Amino acid sequence: MEEKTFLFVSGILEAELPAHKDVVILSGPSHAEEASAGLPTLVVSACPDLKKATAVQEIFHQGNFRVYTNTDRLGVEIGGSVKNIIAIAAGICFELGYGSNGLAALMTRGMAEIARLGKKLGGKSETFYGLAGMGDLITTCFSEHSRNRAVGVRLARGESLAQIETSMNMVAEGTYAVRGIRGYAKKENIDMPITEAVYRILFEGLSPKQATQELFSRQARGE
Amino acid sequence: MEEKTFLFVSGILEAELPAHKDVVILSGPSHAEEASAGLPTLVVSACPDLKKATAVQEIFHQGNFRVYTNTDRLGVEIGGSVKNIIAIAAGICFELGYGSNGLAALMTRGMAEIARLGKKLGGKSETFYGLAGMGDLITTCFSEHSRNRAVGVRLARGESLAQIETSMNMVAEGTYAVRGIRGYAKKENIDMPITEAVYRILFEGLSPKQATQELFSRQARGE
Repeated sequence: MEEKTFLFVSGILEAELPAHKDVVILSGPSHAEEASAGLPTLVVSACPDLKKATAVQEIFHQGNFRVYTNTDRLGVEIGGSVKNIIAIAAGICFELGYGSNGLAALMTRGMAEIARLGKKLGGKSETFYGLAGMGDLITTCFSEHSRNRAVGVRLARGESLAQIETSMNMVAEGTYAVRGIRGYAKKENIDMPITEAVYRILFEGLSPKQATQELFSRQARGE
Repeated sequence: MEEKTFLFVSGILEAELPAHKDVVILSGPSHAEEASAGLPTLVVSACPDLKKATAVQEIFHQGNFRVYTNTDRLGVEIGGSVKNIIAIAAGICFELGYGSNGLAALMTRGMAEIARLGKKLGGKSETFYGLAGMGDLITTCFSEHSRNRAVGVRLARGESLAQIETSMNMVAEGTYAVRGIRGYAKKENIDMPITEAVYRILFEGLSPKQATQELFSRQARGE
């Protein structure tokens, strides 16, 4: 999600390249290191125009790389974007030794943030809880190949975002996405406490330890 | 879920102890090894009678052990039961080297099985996608403390259920739950392919490798 326009990738592309309508988004739990090794990888080809989603499916669907169509492109983009922010928080929790109970609770509450934002924007809940939402969230939070999780681990070790960025030769998308998504959530009054915490850690000097302690002790009597 | 009656724990207790109505279920991602070490653990206290759920919450809510109330007890029991079956499949996939893309896809499709069964039985989708469903599924599929995941790992190494059971000094609930849940799914015609595969591996000699290959190559064009 772009910081000022609140557009996702397909919206940016359609605004910049108006002759190319109906961008198709291919997304899902698909770390390239595993897909290229021939391990089973299930992804979503998403476009409001099902014919175009199917055309992309037919190009990429091969062997263990399995492509499913979905017309809810916006829902796919929301999941693929917010999950990177949650993965930064997961890396922090992992490095601080919170254990699998805490990590599972964080991911569940993170999934609820994806669903709340997505509902507001008009995505479908089946999409958030499908491959491009929940599936991608799981891979990104657990995989050693995840750059966003790695950023969280390094933040928890006391490094600043600037230090991490100068020594990383790939982009961790969550550090960009969090600006737009946090801004949109504030503007629209959507409750996204994990996103807010990651933003404050990255840009306002909040300590990862204090942030996670605050997250785990939030007042909430009903689930 | 009991094999013949299709009752969950609260239903069995209320049938056997009719003087004790309104059983409260405490469930969620809560491996005892971590909770007893004081690590953050978030669970659900569930009962149709909110007052009773709150009474149990007040007893257990302390420090990093955080208890949230939920009146959808049935939904909580469904998540807590089916997740053990999916964790057996996750252990198999892990041991067979399927990687995090495949594991995430399996868990996402497993979550869909929980939701399909739960919807049929009358549980609420917020519960399945909450701590006692998705949260518990994540912990159980990933944690080294998970007995059900350990059963899957050993099945993938070629051991039989009988061999595993004689050398395990704790119960892996999924090996019991799968009988009732698979029977109910067959009776009610609910699509639960992972549950079916785990049943066939445990009781009909299907090889874990063949079962997972079949799961990952199922025909499905739309997500």
